Amino acid sequence: MRTIGVVTSGGDAPGMNAAIRAITRIAHSKGFQVLGFERGWEGLIRNTFVPLTPRSVGGIIQLGGTILHTTRCPEFRKKEGIKKAAETLAFNKVYGLVVIGGDGSFRGALELSRETDTLIVGVPATIDNDVYGTEETIGFDTAVNTAVTEIDKIRDTAVSHERVFIVEVMGRKRGFLASTVGLTVGAETILVPEVPYNKEEIFQTIKENTAKGKKSGIIVAAEGIGDTRKLAKEIEENANVEVRLSILGYAQRGGSPTARSRLLASLFAEKAVELLSEGQGSKIVGLQNGEITSIELKKCCETEKPLNVNLLKLAKVLAT
Amino acid sequence: MRTIGVVTSGGDAPGMNAAIRAITRIAHSKGFQVLGFERGWEGLIRNTFVPLTPRSVGGIIQLGGTILHTTRCPEFRKKEGIKKAAETLAFNKVYGLVVIGGDGSFRGALELSRETDTLIVGVPATIDNDVYGTEETIGFDTAVNTAVTEIDKIRDTAVSHERVFIVEVMGRKRGFLASTVGLTVGAETILVPEVPYNKEEIFQTIKENTAKGKKSGIIVAAEGIGDTRKLAKEIEENANVEVRLSILGYAQRGGSPTARSRLLASLFAEKAVELLSEGQGSKIVGLQNGEITSIELKKCCETEKPLNVNLLKLAKVLAT
Amino acid sequence: MRTIGVVTSGGDAPGMNAAIRAITRIAHSKGFQVLGFERGWEGLIRNTFVPLTPRSVGGIIQLGGTILHTTRCPEFRKKEGIKKAAETLAFNKVYGLVVIGGDGSFRGALELSRETDTLIVGVPATIDNDVYGTEETIGFDTAVNTAVTEIDKIRDTAVSHERVFIVEVMGRKRGFLASTVGLTVGAETILVPEVPYNKEEIFQTIKENTAKGKKSGIIVAAEGIGDTRKLAKEIEENANVEVRLSILGYAQRGGSPTARSRLLASLFAEKAVELLSEGQGSKIVGLQNGEITSIELKKCCETEKPLNVNLLKLAKVLAT
Amino acid sequence: MRTIGVVTSGGDAPGMNAAIRAITRIAHSKGFQVLGFERGWEGLIRNTFVPLTPRSVGGIIQLGGTILHTTRCPEFRKKEGIKKAAETLAFNKVYGLVVIGGDGSFRGALELSRETDTLIVGVPATIDNDVYGTEETIGFDTAVNTAVTEIDKIRDTAVSHERVFIVEVMGRKRGFLASTVGLTVGAETILVPEVPYNKEEIFQTIKENTAKGKKSGIIVAAEGIGDTRKLAKEIEENANVEVRLSILGYAQRGGSPTARSRLLASLFAEKAVELLSEGQGSKIVGLQNGEITSIELKKCCETEKPLNVNLLKLAKVLAT
Repeated sequence: MRTIGVVTSGGDAPGMNAAIRAITRIAHSKGFQVLGFERGWEGLIRNTFVPLTPRSVGGIIQLGGTILHTTRCPEFRKKEGIKKAAETLAFNKVYGLVVIGGDGSFRGALELSRETDTLIVGVPATIDNDVYGTEETIGFDTAVNTAVTEIDKIRDTAVSHERVFIVEVMGRKRGFLASTVGLTVGAETILVPEVPYNKEEIFQTIKENTAKGKKSGIIVAAEGIGDTRKLAKEIEENANVEVRLSILGYAQRGGSPTARSRLLASLFAEKAVELLSEGQGSKIVGLQNGEITSIELKKCCETEKPLNVNLLKLAKVLAT
Repeated sequence: MRTIGVVTSGGDAPGMNAAIRAITRIAHSKGFQVLGFERGWEGLIRNTFVPLTPRSVGGIIQLGGTILHTTRCPEFRKKEGIKKAAETLAFNKVYGLVVIGGDGSFRGALELSRETDTLIVGVPATIDNDVYGTEETIGFDTAVNTAVTEIDKIRDTAVSHERVFIVEVMGRKRGFLASTVGLTVGAETILVPEVPYNKEEIFQTIKENTAKGKKSGIIVAAEGIGDTRKLAKEIEENANVEVRLSILGYAQRGGSPTARSRLLASLFAEKAVELLSEGQGSKIVGLQNGEITSIELKKCCETEKPLNVNLLKLAKVLAT
Repeated sequence: MRTIGVVTSGGDAPGMNAAIRAITRIAHSKGFQVLGFERGWEGLIRNTFVPLTPRSVGGIIQLGGTILHTTRCPEFRKKEGIKKAAETLAFNKVYGLVVIGGDGSFRGALELSRETDTLIVGVPATIDNDVYGTEETIGFDTAVNTAVTEIDKIRDTAVSHERVFIVEVMGRKRGFLASTVGLTVGAETILVPEVPYNKEEIFQTIKENTAKGKKSGIIVAAEGIGDTRKLAKEIEENANVEVRLSILGYAQRGGSPTARSRLLASLFAEKAVELLSEGQGSKIVGLQNGEITSIELKKCCETEKPLNVNLLKLAKVLAT
Repeated sequence: MRTIGVVTSGGDAPGMNAAIRAITRIAHSKGFQVLGFERGWEGLIRNTFVPLTPRSVGGIIQLGGTILHTTRCPEFRKKEGIKKAAETLAFNKVYGLVVIGGDGSFRGALELSRETDTLIVGVPATIDNDVYGTEETIGFDTAVNTAVTEIDKIRDTAVSHERVFIVEVMGRKRGFLASTVGLTVGAETILVPEVPYNKEEIFQTIKENTAKGKKSGIIVAAEGIGDTRKLAKEIEENANVEVRLSILGYAQRGGSPTARSRLLASLFAEKAVELLSEGQGSKIVGLQNGEITSIELKKCCETEKPLNVNLLKLAKVLAT
């Protein structure tokens, strides 16, 4: 019986468990046995794993986080760590390894693929949605909805107090989360790292809105744009409004996955196991033009995913 | 200044308000004024409307239902009703009409388009997702998540009591809602009108699961499959388990729209206004292969949207 | 080391797990060991249990259902079943038994207490809130909020379609759930088994509301009032409105417990263990006048908890 | 027809709208007319108000924030501001004024009561729950549940990454929110301003938990305890764990009120109008020993509400 390994790596994302469940059950239906390496790359370096069976992955589809745990693993950034991981794969006769994670994890997977015969397939799961080769990653839809729900609540207070709120959302260096969240909460302004912003313009927008009778407002800012605390102060000083800052925290990374994150997890898992059973490796699966597809792992690691700036333009019109 | 009319018709769907807001603001930015006809086709027959302005549609993006109200309008099914509606459009010099609704509404829109010079564009909004020409309708994602959240709760009781639950979801004559919900809650069995089901097979699955130690189970059934009450009884008698039936009700049609329903509403609105400003009518907008696009209204009305049966096959493997 | 047993019995209620966790940890801190009998009274009859330790009850405070499972146990209604249960307690040298459940469970506990030296203390947990001796039971607040959230969504559709909705909530033969839910969703009419209702009055209220411009409405009905389907039809025929019926199902019994249900579970657990360590049994713990207290198990079983009809009067004024 | 005024003041709290609705409808049922002063004390100083009718307060029971708006009003802290407010009350012949807010608002109300013949009654509404004379304030239960839901999500990430999280919750100078939230999320440590904490003890607890195999942990800290950022660093350095800080923001102040916050709003409103119609003023209504009651406004302003430290002791045992 051939063996498939599964590992979750990097930051956790809602839907990772749904992916683990789907990979395990689909792989079993195709005659594979499945090992779950624990605590990210550390499990591959230290050869710590649990067998995953259709029964052992029951009751987890709705859980946030990852039952395999995940951790940062500095050892894996060195040649030696990667070699150890390759040895673990060989030792356990792992035919194919599914790496569930984001672009950092995939760069690790690419390095590893050069040292092993085990086929490696990546399944994109990160709330940041910053992986080239897929329009959407597992967990993104959940994080967007978590942020939207929060900001809907903050708007109550913004309207009641006639204040402007800056809400900082996650997304690391990119603005995927901020732009989708900003559009869907009806933010007056959306700030992302990809588009330089002009403070004067922000002040101006707020003053115009005040003149129009729009006394409260929401600015959604990606964490990647820099110091939002300073920005809050500057707006308060220059636009003659009360400003409050709310930094949405780690709740964006947790919680029960939305239906869409669970669906994507299931479809990506199906594709990943299909690739492996066809003998294909060094790929990541993804959603492109509404289809589940795959691209080369190398291409994924080397290319920066472009931000859809049309969303920002639309958001501007909608926030009139 | 040219005039655009907006009407919501048929069953309400979460995100209709987000669509009204987006159409209004985008149309205004292009120099149109906007009229909101009230209570569905009735507003067109009786010439009752409210002017919609960027300010008057503020604060509604997150609300379920429709601020324009909607109603069944038997009068509109007759020639005379349609003529009256056409007269209302002429009387108010309505250049373009955006019809937000499902396939019933679009059949009405098609009839109306034959009696008027006003351009008509449809925006698909229904929790049933049964509109040809779009992979997804406004409100579908929200209804799916509402049902999933409910069933996650029901599973608590199913597991605690080691019972089988049949959960009936909406979807009218189709199985779109049931299949996506079933897959994403990890249902053991999914029953849709498009695929005839074999009762013996259901009994068998339950007996096998019991043997495997899976003592509880969820069957997701589309309302279109027929009498679930009878089915519950038959399972109880034949599969030697306690069965409970839960019919998820109208909550599936309400609630604050998910980010995705809001996003789709905004993108569809943008496309609809774009079509009108280009002088195109008799179309519906839609999502196809991940792109916002449009098809002929006539084609939409005449074609039945196929159900993706691969989802059901995948669900079967995942429910092992 | 003395032993405390825990059992969950009857219908499950959110917060039962929080109670199991709290009893286990508090009992351990006082030097007891804890056994969790499985599947309600069945576990006591068949001597099936799991040891509960502070670690084994970790990560369950937020889970609905009960990790000990629960079931109806007809055997326990007979003398013989109760004797077997008493033998199990003696065999395992169980010093005290905590029964988490509703009034049915407590009647069983009372019978059992007559056949055993083990001290028995009841912890009221049922979404029906129909236990004499406590103003509130574990799970009630959660069920209320689940129903309120559902009905808030249904109201979207009611308002959009200008319809009247009858929403049937749980509560078995009593109206505790219906009256609190009805008041807090702003229902126009609340129907409970404790107060006979006059159909003519309902028709009248709806007609008056229609005249006042209140075109939609919510009637919250306890499941105990009888055939709501028939009532819906009668209203439709007599009050000249569209009526829809929505029966809120088993989701009311599941879901993550609210803070209040968790808090109550913790406080009740503390009191229950305190009673046992003082050598007191044949009691149930409860909330009275804002204090955690206890009453005789016998008194609890023999007395019907009165419904606060003032809530219904207030609701009537508020629904003006 | 006698007139009752209503004003919401200070920070907003979920359930204020439910209170406005209830006061309006109950007052109308007793023959009063109702004026809603806008933007807190500012509305009293500037004589800006809206008439509130049973119809105009429809559809707001479930909304967060306050339809009357609220604001800080420095002018009201001066003698002159208070005199102007008294003049506004006299000018409008306001028989009784209901002040919905927290202890700051009540101190303002006390000052005002000395300058006017209008009867003044306070309705406690603040998420901080720091008002003497009531066990619970409107909005507290909602804020607790919002925080609990957030922290349940954060726990996913904490467990997956085996990290310790410090979660800072609101509460101003007091620990009511932190202690209830901490207990009900199962926090390992709860830090409140009322109880000095020992850093060494925190380090010790974490080390012991690590030794026990509890690799993740949640510390709930009230905002009033000081610099949590610094604390996070110190723990990381001294307890040999990864620590993350999450500051729960303004979402705690918004959102749809829970059933309990709505119920309390309705009951407090009933009592407030009852007091006024009996000719009683200079009081606040409250919940004491499970009963709706009232105390002198002066007493409320002069007395500090004690924190129930037993909750903290219980939480410690439960976090074993």
